[in-house]
Amino acid sequence: MCRWLAYTGSPILVKDVLYTPAHSLIDQSLHSKLGAETTNGDGFGVGWYDAAPAPGVFRSIEPAWNDQNLRELAGHVTSPLFFAHIRAAIGSAVQQTNCHPFRYGRWLFMHNGFIDGFAAIKRDLVLAIDESLYPEIKGQADTEVLFYLALTFGLEEDPPGAVARAIGFVEAAGRQRGVTNPFQGTIATSDGEDLWVFRYSSEGKSRSLFFSRDIRAVRQLYPDREILSGLSDDTRLVVSEPIGDLPGAWNEMPEASYGVVGKGDDRLLPFVVQPPPKAL
Amino acid sequence: MCRWLAYTGSPILVKDVLYTPAHSLIDQSLHSKLGAETTNGDGFGVGWYDAAPAPGVFRSIEPAWNDQNLRELAGHVTSPLFFAHIRAAIGSAVQQTNCHPFRYGRWLFMHNGFIDGFAAIKRDLVLAIDESLYPEIKGQADTEVLFYLALTFGLEEDPPGAVARAIGFVEAAGRQRGVTNPFQGTIATSDGEDLWVFRYSSEGKSRSLFFSRDIRAVRQLYPDREILSGLSDDTRLVVSEPIGDLPGAWNEMPEASYGVVGKGDDRLLPFVVQPPPKAL
Amino acid sequence: MCRWLAYTGSPILVKDVLYTPAHSLIDQSLHSKLGAETTNGDGFGVGWYDAAPAPGVFRSIEPAWNDQNLRELAGHVTSPLFFAHIRAAIGSAVQQTNCHPFRYGRWLFMHNGFIDGFAAIKRDLVLAIDESLYPEIKGQADTEVLFYLALTFGLEEDPPGAVARAIGFVEAAGRQRGVTNPFQGTIATSDGEDLWVFRYSSEGKSRSLFFSRDIRAVRQLYPDREILSGLSDDTRLVVSEPIGDLPGAWNEMPEASYGVVGKGDDRLLPFVVQPPPKAL
Amino acid sequence: MCRWLAYTGSPILVKDVLYTPAHSLIDQSLHSKLGAETTNGDGFGVGWYDAAPAPGVFRSIEPAWNDQNLRELAGHVTSPLFFAHIRAAIGSAVQQTNCHPFRYGRWLFMHNGFIDGFAAIKRDLVLAIDESLYPEIKGQADTEVLFYLALTFGLEEDPPGAVARAIGFVEAAGRQRGVTNPFQGTIATSDGEDLWVFRYSSEGKSRSLFFSRDIRAVRQLYPDREILSGLSDDTRLVVSEPIGDLPGAWNEMPEASYGVVGKGDDRLLPFVVQPPPKAL
Repeated sequence: MCRWLAYTGSPILVKDVLYTPAHSLIDQSLHSKLGAETTNGDGFGVGWYDAAPAPGVFRSIEPAWNDQNLRELAGHVTSPLFFAHIRAAIGSAVQQTNCHPFRYGRWLFMHNGFIDGFAAIKRDLVLAIDESLYPEIKGQADTEVLFYLALTFGLEEDPPGAVARAIGFVEAAGRQRGVTNPFQGTIATSDGEDLWVFRYSSEGKSRSLFFSRDIRAVRQLYPDREILSGLSDDTRLVVSEPIGDLPGAWNEMPEASYGVVGKGDDRLLPFVVQPPPKAL
Repeated sequence: MCRWLAYTGSPILVKDVLYTPAHSLIDQSLHSKLGAETTNGDGFGVGWYDAAPAPGVFRSIEPAWNDQNLRELAGHVTSPLFFAHIRAAIGSAVQQTNCHPFRYGRWLFMHNGFIDGFAAIKRDLVLAIDESLYPEIKGQADTEVLFYLALTFGLEEDPPGAVARAIGFVEAAGRQRGVTNPFQGTIATSDGEDLWVFRYSSEGKSRSLFFSRDIRAVRQLYPDREILSGLSDDTRLVVSEPIGDLPGAWNEMPEASYGVVGKGDDRLLPFVVQPPPKAL
Repeated sequence: MCRWLAYTGSPILVKDVLYTPAHSLIDQSLHSKLGAETTNGDGFGVGWYDAAPAPGVFRSIEPAWNDQNLRELAGHVTSPLFFAHIRAAIGSAVQQTNCHPFRYGRWLFMHNGFIDGFAAIKRDLVLAIDESLYPEIKGQADTEVLFYLALTFGLEEDPPGAVARAIGFVEAAGRQRGVTNPFQGTIATSDGEDLWVFRYSSEGKSRSLFFSRDIRAVRQLYPDREILSGLSDDTRLVVSEPIGDLPGAWNEMPEASYGVVGKGDDRLLPFVVQPPPKAL
Repeated sequence: MCRWLAYTGSPILVKDVLYTPAHSLIDQSLHSKLGAETTNGDGFGVGWYDAAPAPGVFRSIEPAWNDQNLRELAGHVTSPLFFAHIRAAIGSAVQQTNCHPFRYGRWLFMHNGFIDGFAAIKRDLVLAIDESLYPEIKGQADTEVLFYLALTFGLEEDPPGAVARAIGFVEAAGRQRGVTNPFQGTIATSDGEDLWVFRYSSEGKSRSLFFSRDIRAVRQLYPDREILSGLSDDTRLVVSEPIGDLPGAWNEMPEASYGVVGKGDDRLLPFVVQPPPKAL
């Protein structure tokens, strides 16, 4: 449905990740190989952390491949942690407020996939969102609703648990309305310090997700690549499908798993959906 | 906040109403005289009836004054009943799904004004919308919520009553949250046959609204105007502020009133807000 | 690079040609089979003739597949002669003034292909455009320059000759600058009465072009198709690649040929480039 | 016709100049006081210098007042030298390639005003542009043509002289075609080191232009303003109309003058148009 990329590590010019590599995310906006759709031309977004109190977000409804402003921004913004997302819309309108990543305070959130039967269960989901958060919803995308459900269920304190409860809630709501496989997708979220990534689907056949191997191992494989020598040891990329031309540099996330990428402390764990809080 | 225009009568090229007159609606997008804002540059929309089963709707986020496609459309579309709206956004995003007129089946709906304290009461309002209508909501504008409330309260059977109940509900919900004057504005709605227009505000100081006098009387005032001779006797224009240069051609709608313009049967009546249905 | 479609015949709702058929032009904007690019998402345009003095033109930089306004327009505009074009940009900016069809007075002009080495020879080409026409150029596309060259060389009096001279001029200018194969493409132009279509390239391997067979023959092939019975005998479609699911309904235009589709008088002739006027 | 602002001095968050002050440039996009037009809603642009080899340029056709991406960019980009421009179009299309500032290599160029009779003399002007620069022209705005004329006449070596020759050429070309007052406006240009600003019109009644007084003097006037204490002594703002609420902080540029703002070396000099090179 979409393609995305999350970078954390040494501060880097966004362009060097987004445009420069072979089969870059920008190329994938026209010619995705592993996506459900080959074209991801229904808008895009970039979210980046820097010294400002909240991350910057630049979103547009133009296809990423021909957006001149994205090219300018990527050539001038340096960041130690950023998200990029290209969209293939299914259902909700092509408008900036439906483009990923979504932002709340210091949090960014993006998703490749969908909530099946969303029109039928949207009202049930929206009703479960905390009343104080409700006015913050700006668009109509299923992912934005999922994000606010996760915030309602404690994203800021316990990201993996909150996502597990949010998806659990989606599954319960969907199945009540006769949807067999309510959730599909991969998710990335961050508070500007750590990065959490998820791969899960109700049917157990999730959209692809890859993370870069330890940069020290990649450097040994490709000692001549200058760009690798400039990156700190804890640099990590997570992508919907591999970019670049470095075989051996990528590992696929297992089905139903999640990862935490922090300062020198990366973990890959099984992802288990949790039942939603009783009160709901 | 906005300016609008509703035309019903002899089929006419949209351009002859929208662009040609002095102080046209397009001029008002840059230089409104009576509006709360002089500039209405946050998008626009046109809705028109023709032989198709549902009215056409063309909406854009560009200012009306420099939209080339609007100029083209207006020069090629002929219609016996159409709406045009120019927006000065307050709060909700500038995106097509927030532009007026809104459409449901054969119904069009547009509004100049606002629901005060909308962020605080939006959830209460949305919850009152019929569950089967809920998935049809595409944007975030207060007017779209009001439209779906009116549909929930019987717009298709009893337009004046449904609008009275919808505004009544908005006033009740607003006052419960401490908003003194929850509703402000003028409204137009149509099913393609009749046109209903409303002027009302909780504080009793409503946005301006004018309707054209009987075309036969205007013809007597301006016997040399060719365009008037081509219009049928039941042709009527309702506008946020007068267009053209025909003093004597316009009457102001009284405070708290509504009008019905049908086939040879126009009425102007007092508008009284109705309490919302008990069950809500 | 692009895909296009030209329709002439019984007045028809644009939607029934543009959206309804299998593998419609709108589908081709995402999934072209015969184009140089599978995605044609860099804007689009529709030009249509009706009772107005000049044809209407609606152009947008959004991909055609998700443009809501195009869908509305196509569902409400009926025309006996219209053009539609979806763009895959190469070089010039994605902006409305670079979208096809281009218009001058009653003339429309569109193109699938390119002028090779355009940046190098653009100045030579633009200098050859009649001084009185020069200020009419609004964008930067190679096709617009070609259109104004053709107008300079007599398009309004002798369309095939003017196009042959314009392409001859492009070839001469290109070869002077060392470009081997300066022109590639298919072209459609009309004055609202007749339709001229061209297939030609300097290297003799032109972009594909198909025209619908005589509608009477197609009706015999598919007697059960209701839509065919409503079309007049002189209805004709010319397309970059076949639409619909009617094998046997299409003929391919031969290499280096042009066609004229008029009122009951269709001709298919060889296209021979002409040397540009001496004075140039 | 437009409004602009040029900042040079201590690196500063763009937002603190563009949004924060009273009567900011963003406010002026809706409510200009001194402009020829009160509304400057036909697109905008920002150009900024940083460590990258060329300045960044972000341009959009939306009104500046409601562009969410501009707000984001301004909140995250810090620069010691940047331009901002809001446009009120006259004649040329509202498209990114017509938005200021224009860029060539390390040079930025922007303008408030117009070339009178541009349609009539455009061809003469464009012919005078160096052939090697010609393909770089991307839009249709009079200002872009003026910029390339100035580059042709030596902008990179002698900015004031080149601008004087370019305007001289415009005046000569215009008068040959019967235009009485061919040039009107204020201009800013920079190479990332120095800033040159110009105020001139053929009729001697130029658009307004103001520069901030020596920051040390302004600090003495407003000792309590924290933001002033953080700025280096050579910080300077040049604006179409004053921003902020600091009476005494601004000087008006005299009619027919130009200024150079460099590292601790600011000069204000008379501007005298120069005859164009003979060969033209």
